[in-house]
Amino acid sequence: MSSSSAAPAAKPPMREALVAAAFQLFLERGYEQTTVDDIAALAGVGRRSFFRYFPSKEDVVFPDHERCLADMTAFLAAGGEEHEPVRRVCDAARLVLGMYAENPTFSVQRYRLTKQVPGLRAYELSVVWRYERALAEYLRGRFAGRPDGTLRADVVAAAVVAAHNNALRSWLRSDGLGDAGAAVDHALGYVQKAFGRGTEPGASPVRAAAVTAGEPAGPGEDVVVLVSRRDAPLWRVVQELETALGRC
Amino acid sequence: MSSSSAAPAAKPPMREALVAAAFQLFLERGYEQTTVDDIAALAGVGRRSFFRYFPSKEDVVFPDHERCLADMTAFLAAGGEEHEPVRRVCDAARLVLGMYAENPTFSVQRYRLTKQVPGLRAYELSVVWRYERALAEYLRGRFAGRPDGTLRADVVAAAVVAAHNNALRSWLRSDGLGDAGAAVDHALGYVQKAFGRGTEPGASPVRAAAVTAGEPAGPGEDVVVLVSRRDAPLWRVVQELETALGRC
Repeated sequence: MSSSSAAPAAKPPMREALVAAAFQLFLERGYEQTTVDDIAALAGVGRRSFFRYFPSKEDVVFPDHERCLADMTAFLAAGGEEHEPVRRVCDAARLVLGMYAENPTFSVQRYRLTKQVPGLRAYELSVVWRYERALAEYLRGRFAGRPDGTLRADVVAAAVVAAHNNALRSWLRSDGLGDAGAAVDHALGYVQKAFGRGTEPGASPVRAAAVTAGEPAGPGEDVVVLVSRRDAPLWRVVQELETALGRC
Repeated sequence: MSSSSAAPAAKPPMREALVAAAFQLFLERGYEQTTVDDIAALAGVGRRSFFRYFPSKEDVVFPDHERCLADMTAFLAAGGEEHEPVRRVCDAARLVLGMYAENPTFSVQRYRLTKQVPGLRAYELSVVWRYERALAEYLRGRFAGRPDGTLRADVVAAAVVAAHNNALRSWLRSDGLGDAGAAVDHALGYVQKAFGRGTEPGASPVRAAAVTAGEPAGPGEDVVVLVSRRDAPLWRVVQELETALGRC
């Protein structure tokens, strides 16, 4: 965003004024019928001032995505080995939701506008693609060296974006009523269950754990609980069992 | 596709000639430096003939996607209740692969071109989006009435497309060498393992236990739960397990 280096602490009022003027005209006349000159005039500035803030008319419709993409990239880069990767990308996706939920009225207006204007739909697809690539790149780094690392990264990133957008769009369709955060948490929870640690499709079909029943007693009182997919190979089940029993 | 009703049995030679002329010029001069007039002239027809086959210069780069989308929609519509939904959308995605694998040289040329021209990248994103929506719409129908039906549909569709494209792009990057079909099968297998019948993240562990206790289900569908005292002899545990697995 060309303006961010000039005023990093807060959005410049002129930028906000241009966005407000643009949406006022889009709603009154329609997107196609509004020119950049119209927007600049309503905001009380010249055409060149508009282009100082936005490269094109389309960009004024999505004024916060560049900042949000930068925030997301920084958030992912700040993550360490201690962060479970799938959870981390889910948290990164929540930054996008935060941007929408910050201003429900504006988000709903934009959603309706985007549905009507094919050019804006295409723009939005390219933005969504950039979010998805940011998540996938992070996951590719975290999954490097694992079998199917890039496949897993791409699939999880796509699933996270799809889940996020499913919940976001439901919220936008409901005019921004209801709890967007809870809806997105639920949707992302579905993806975490499918792909989070210990539930990867490639993970062992067998789980075994030693459980101490009741009060601490002698070693012989512990119980081993083993859950296995019925089609798991027997050797795999026994191996898991031996580990849980502490006998190998 | 405007031409498909005129000649449904085979691609009209003129259409192929226009595609061949276009790619010859794109490779020689670059995409931006080639006009529709140039393409038409090389193919020996007028500008109007070009537009009879393709709405724009971008469309000549992706001459088969409309047909493939129609094939995919028809394939999904022809499916019945007996088709496991996740497998069905994986099979539908294989139709797209088939289109690419039919003509590796052309597919690799287009891949390189698309990477260089942002406008084509945007076009491709919109095509990918349409494939993903076709898969998601089918799954929404199949998952209707299930909890989180639309969420599940959108996530699975996105995962299938991401897996397909991960394998497809690896193949295109390797200049169309190697077995594209096997790579895509492997990638789609990963998604089927994550989301196919019996492995849904939403499947309750209580239900899984009831399946084991009740009537036998399909292979891989049920789960064996084993509880053992930790000091039980291993041979005794394995014997118990073999009985539960039905393997002795």
